[in-house]
Amino acid sequence: MRVGLLGAGRIGKVHAQAISSHPESALVAVSDAFEKNAQALAEGYGCQVRSSDEIIADSSIDAVLIATPTDTHSDLIEAAARSGKAVLCEKPVDLSLERAHACLANVGEKAASIMIGFNRRFDPSFGALKTAIDAGEIGKTELLSITSFDPAPPPVEYIKVSGGLFRDMMIHDFDMANFIMGQAPVSVSATGSSVVDPAIGAAGDFDTAVVTLSYADGRIAVIKNSRRAVYGYDQRVEVLGSGGLLQAQNMLENTVVKSTAEGVCSAKPTYFFLERYMPAYKAEWTAFVEAVQGKSKMPVNLYDGVAALAMAEAATRSAHSGQPVKMVDVLEESERREAV
Amino acid sequence: MRVGLLGAGRIGKVHAQAISSHPESALVAVSDAFEKNAQALAEGYGCQVRSSDEIIADSSIDAVLIATPTDTHSDLIEAAARSGKAVLCEKPVDLSLERAHACLANVGEKAASIMIGFNRRFDPSFGALKTAIDAGEIGKTELLSITSFDPAPPPVEYIKVSGGLFRDMMIHDFDMANFIMGQAPVSVSATGSSVVDPAIGAAGDFDTAVVTLSYADGRIAVIKNSRRAVYGYDQRVEVLGSGGLLQAQNMLENTVVKSTAEGVCSAKPTYFFLERYMPAYKAEWTAFVEAVQGKSKMPVNLYDGVAALAMAEAATRSAHSGQPVKMVDVLEESERREAV
Amino acid sequence: MRVGLLGAGRIGKVHAQAISSHPESALVAVSDAFEKNAQALAEGYGCQVRSSDEIIADSSIDAVLIATPTDTHSDLIEAAARSGKAVLCEKPVDLSLERAHACLANVGEKAASIMIGFNRRFDPSFGALKTAIDAGEIGKTELLSITSFDPAPPPVEYIKVSGGLFRDMMIHDFDMANFIMGQAPVSVSATGSSVVDPAIGAAGDFDTAVVTLSYADGRIAVIKNSRRAVYGYDQRVEVLGSGGLLQAQNMLENTVVKSTAEGVCSAKPTYFFLERYMPAYKAEWTAFVEAVQGKSKMPVNLYDGVAALAMAEAATRSAHSGQPVKMVDVLEESERREAV
Amino acid sequence: MRVGLLGAGRIGKVHAQAISSHPESALVAVSDAFEKNAQALAEGYGCQVRSSDEIIADSSIDAVLIATPTDTHSDLIEAAARSGKAVLCEKPVDLSLERAHACLANVGEKAASIMIGFNRRFDPSFGALKTAIDAGEIGKTELLSITSFDPAPPPVEYIKVSGGLFRDMMIHDFDMANFIMGQAPVSVSATGSSVVDPAIGAAGDFDTAVVTLSYADGRIAVIKNSRRAVYGYDQRVEVLGSGGLLQAQNMLENTVVKSTAEGVCSAKPTYFFLERYMPAYKAEWTAFVEAVQGKSKMPVNLYDGVAALAMAEAATRSAHSGQPVKMVDVLEESERREAV
Repeated sequence: MRVGLLGAGRIGKVHAQAISSHPESALVAVSDAFEKNAQALAEGYGCQVRSSDEIIADSSIDAVLIATPTDTHSDLIEAAARSGKAVLCEKPVDLSLERAHACLANVGEKAASIMIGFNRRFDPSFGALKTAIDAGEIGKTELLSITSFDPAPPPVEYIKVSGGLFRDMMIHDFDMANFIMGQAPVSVSATGSSVVDPAIGAAGDFDTAVVTLSYADGRIAVIKNSRRAVYGYDQRVEVLGSGGLLQAQNMLENTVVKSTAEGVCSAKPTYFFLERYMPAYKAEWTAFVEAVQGKSKMPVNLYDGVAALAMAEAATRSAHSGQPVKMVDVLEESERREAV
Repeated sequence: MRVGLLGAGRIGKVHAQAISSHPESALVAVSDAFEKNAQALAEGYGCQVRSSDEIIADSSIDAVLIATPTDTHSDLIEAAARSGKAVLCEKPVDLSLERAHACLANVGEKAASIMIGFNRRFDPSFGALKTAIDAGEIGKTELLSITSFDPAPPPVEYIKVSGGLFRDMMIHDFDMANFIMGQAPVSVSATGSSVVDPAIGAAGDFDTAVVTLSYADGRIAVIKNSRRAVYGYDQRVEVLGSGGLLQAQNMLENTVVKSTAEGVCSAKPTYFFLERYMPAYKAEWTAFVEAVQGKSKMPVNLYDGVAALAMAEAATRSAHSGQPVKMVDVLEESERREAV
Repeated sequence: MRVGLLGAGRIGKVHAQAISSHPESALVAVSDAFEKNAQALAEGYGCQVRSSDEIIADSSIDAVLIATPTDTHSDLIEAAARSGKAVLCEKPVDLSLERAHACLANVGEKAASIMIGFNRRFDPSFGALKTAIDAGEIGKTELLSITSFDPAPPPVEYIKVSGGLFRDMMIHDFDMANFIMGQAPVSVSATGSSVVDPAIGAAGDFDTAVVTLSYADGRIAVIKNSRRAVYGYDQRVEVLGSGGLLQAQNMLENTVVKSTAEGVCSAKPTYFFLERYMPAYKAEWTAFVEAVQGKSKMPVNLYDGVAALAMAEAATRSAHSGQPVKMVDVLEESERREAV
Repeated sequence: MRVGLLGAGRIGKVHAQAISSHPESALVAVSDAFEKNAQALAEGYGCQVRSSDEIIADSSIDAVLIATPTDTHSDLIEAAARSGKAVLCEKPVDLSLERAHACLANVGEKAASIMIGFNRRFDPSFGALKTAIDAGEIGKTELLSITSFDPAPPPVEYIKVSGGLFRDMMIHDFDMANFIMGQAPVSVSATGSSVVDPAIGAAGDFDTAVVTLSYADGRIAVIKNSRRAVYGYDQRVEVLGSGGLLQAQNMLENTVVKSTAEGVCSAKPTYFFLERYMPAYKAEWTAFVEAVQGKSKMPVNLYDGVAALAMAEAATRSAHSGQPVKMVDVLEESERREAV
């Protein structure tokens, strides 16, 4: 599989490594708005620098990986889909739910085979937890709890263009909830605050938030986010079921335990997403290749991408209004606007 | 200190043991609506069986421990306070917030020296966590998370008279939130469900609930309750602060780890509150004796008892209405009604 | 059961508490070479101060607990046995293996019903480990490993009269090996050193030692001792079997975990034997009472006490000579000398 | 750096991956006694198949990695050293201590820059433990304990040609002891058994062994080996020092914990050396490249390889004779024989 990479930034580099080290895919071209970025990456991997349009138009290229800025995702997904490419696009689909819905409409039935990069589904521990649920190891799931803290907040300048905590950060957890619970919630209730840095609040965003999701069958999920956990990247999932509890805990940097007069101490969690999720990015690419080869269903698709974005939209509204938001209202409004 | 025990049920027996094994207190009398209960307990401890009224009227008795049914708590607190007794009353103060507010008004300034039995504050691990927070070990607290699952639901008949999940079970966690956060929240948002047993839902209650508490200074707390965790009594507290995370984890029945071809397994959490909190009940009594002796402030008093009850009232309303509830509305209404 | 306590020192006080809080035993008398010690204890428990001889001679007393200095154990065991008392004697039986063998001969068949206070057999975690082995949960046991470190070395003055590391400290671990393996080893190979404190070496003893035990059926056990573990009392047992591994780990002071920029830290192990083994001392007394009442076999008897002492003797010789020592040689020599 | 790989078996493949994925090394040729093996590997990596002699003779090749059968190691080390190649040779140097000593003599001062593949030194957890020791985090080291169990015994046919447990398996742990303790022991005392499989004993070898190492400065180390741990590859190191304890624990397959009515269970340790030590093999190669480039000292060299082999020789003799063996005796005898 000949692959073009759109976007040579931090996350593009991660994907380049996964693409080139996979035995059945080859990185043949890369594009970036900053040509220097593309050049640097191209040299490392021995591939061409081209424009995104050229890559999409090149019939010798089988697949594109979209790792460009978020506001270009929908256009590139549509163009690549029209051009018959297999597509793996970084999350989120878009910051605008209407635009995402429009993208869904525009790609039509191809939506089910366009992959959205919710890499955490491919984390070995979250995967093992999901497998255990599906195998009935804790019976019927009842209460899901996701803890997801970043080690340090990004610059406020980034916050301002990020779409906000729910669309930028918690969107991963919304997808995780959908992955674990196997269905979308019916309502979303969010509480947000800026206790970490008032400047984040002044920019209209939150740095700390709790979201409760209610499901039609009575199940409940709760997601906690903070932009700052000084001990590292805290990524945990916990599910209570009729037959027990499953917890996916943090990976630590190493397994050394030191006992001294001060206490018993171990290493910290792996620092951030590159350290924690590198195996997940590789597994994600492998899953994409297999699905493109028809060996399996596309494991997370454009519908999933839009579903998580709709939850982020609902949570954003709920956190600002202080009232729970029904998912059906958010979805109907988006579809209505998009139809206009 | 000569002590009279009002109530010789399951929890009364726990307290009898703590009272009699303390070097500075003696159990001298016990009452119970079922005289057989009182008789059995009195024999074991070599004390008298008397009515609650007689015990309260007896000027040779210094203190009473109220472990009777909840609907008698307020009356007995008032009577014992009038009679000049030191008082330790089991939680909750009452199921009715108005009655609790009236009790507060009736005992006047004695409220600060009447102890309410929120035993978990005396658990060694929760105590160590609180001490670490007060010592600034994780900086400024930002996000509190309490997990509190019972091993198995009580009979539905009990549920019906319990006052509901929030007043009966989560009230402990509301007090824990007040203990950890050091102030009351300004609003309460609750989501409840009956995924464990539909019969609990049919009885008008919930068996699974998530409550989010918002504080005036922007901090957030979240409490998760379930009536069923088949692996035992799950009692955990976790606080994120500007300088780190504190977690109080479960105590296990023993420290044996077994590694076999099937996995690596340890013992389960201690089964239920008697196993988990026996040291806490002893420490609670010791703290009460010290406070009565003037060596320390009463560590948890009638105001604290009413504060937790008000949060339970707010959560109950929120879970039924689906809307967040402001604490000020609940408190004003209660005080208004009480004034009528 | 009316009980006389011989010895009111530190460990005597621990036993006094266990005796008096047991529903079926009462502490009626106490003796001590320092009458003040006996007086203080007697006041706390409302019992008489008498001489050891008087207590042993008193036909109204059913049982004696011997917690006097080691060099009086054998005499007191023999006297109490002659007087028809049930006996629980602190470890070790004696510092002299010959004297212990003579004691065994002198009490005759009563040896099987005289209990020696190897309290660790009654620790909940070691007990659970043994139960799991007996239930076949790891198949056939193959390799046992015992880690046993004290928090800090005793004064060198104590070391000089202690009988040495192997008779004073590791004797507990020899008994634990016998408990877990269910048979005595055939040979003992010891390596000792004084890396903690050269003064201990100058006094002719070791502060750090490793002992390997070989069994007739090919199984192996290894015991590690150190007089100093600055993080607390380190008491672990680990058994590899054909079907898996069992580990009994340390108990921590509480379950709080703190994650900061420096690492992830938990509480230290409980500090020393009083903290760690208090439940074991209570369970030991309960087991003794039950055995005296004929409800069960005496769980650890004079033969066991002598067996552990013989292993300590063998280890002492091996550590000094640098050569492995056959148990049969130690036992034959002791019996030969005793016969002389 | 252009690299030739001698040996295309299981471990050769591991190295091929490390060599080819390193940015500053390229795999240019491979040899194997079974040409099919070499062919298969060469196709995967796009390199040539040649004989070992040809590779060593080719002046365009900078380095060779020797992953051939053990009995060829010394000859290939000598040939490659003569040819001026940088050399990384798999452990052990040889099964014969005399041959290894001769190799040392033959390569002369190049011995310090020939690397021996003790991959465990490059394991992130063992490395972090060593770093902590060197930083003085537990003060002066006193007692080292290494647990090293394989998941399942190899076929008896392999055992027969392996050189025995101590030269084949425990040699890794001898090197780990040298790495941690920073010096060689003065005496070795071994106890071996065949409790796992009597056929291993019948073949003259052991499947279970405990070795005690004594150091000139009084420190002690103990190593435990078993050929069978049904729960996986058990690789732990624990060091007691004057200031505390350091433990490097097992890596688990994932971080999922399942709590059910049966207990609290986590994943097993990573299964075997390929799973556990893959990052170590990569780090080993990186360290070799850096040392060859002169950026650092060769981290483990031919002297280290011979030192571990001498300890294996001593342990083998001790386990068979039942007597401790002085290292000086083993070394003098080897040097004497070699001189003959």
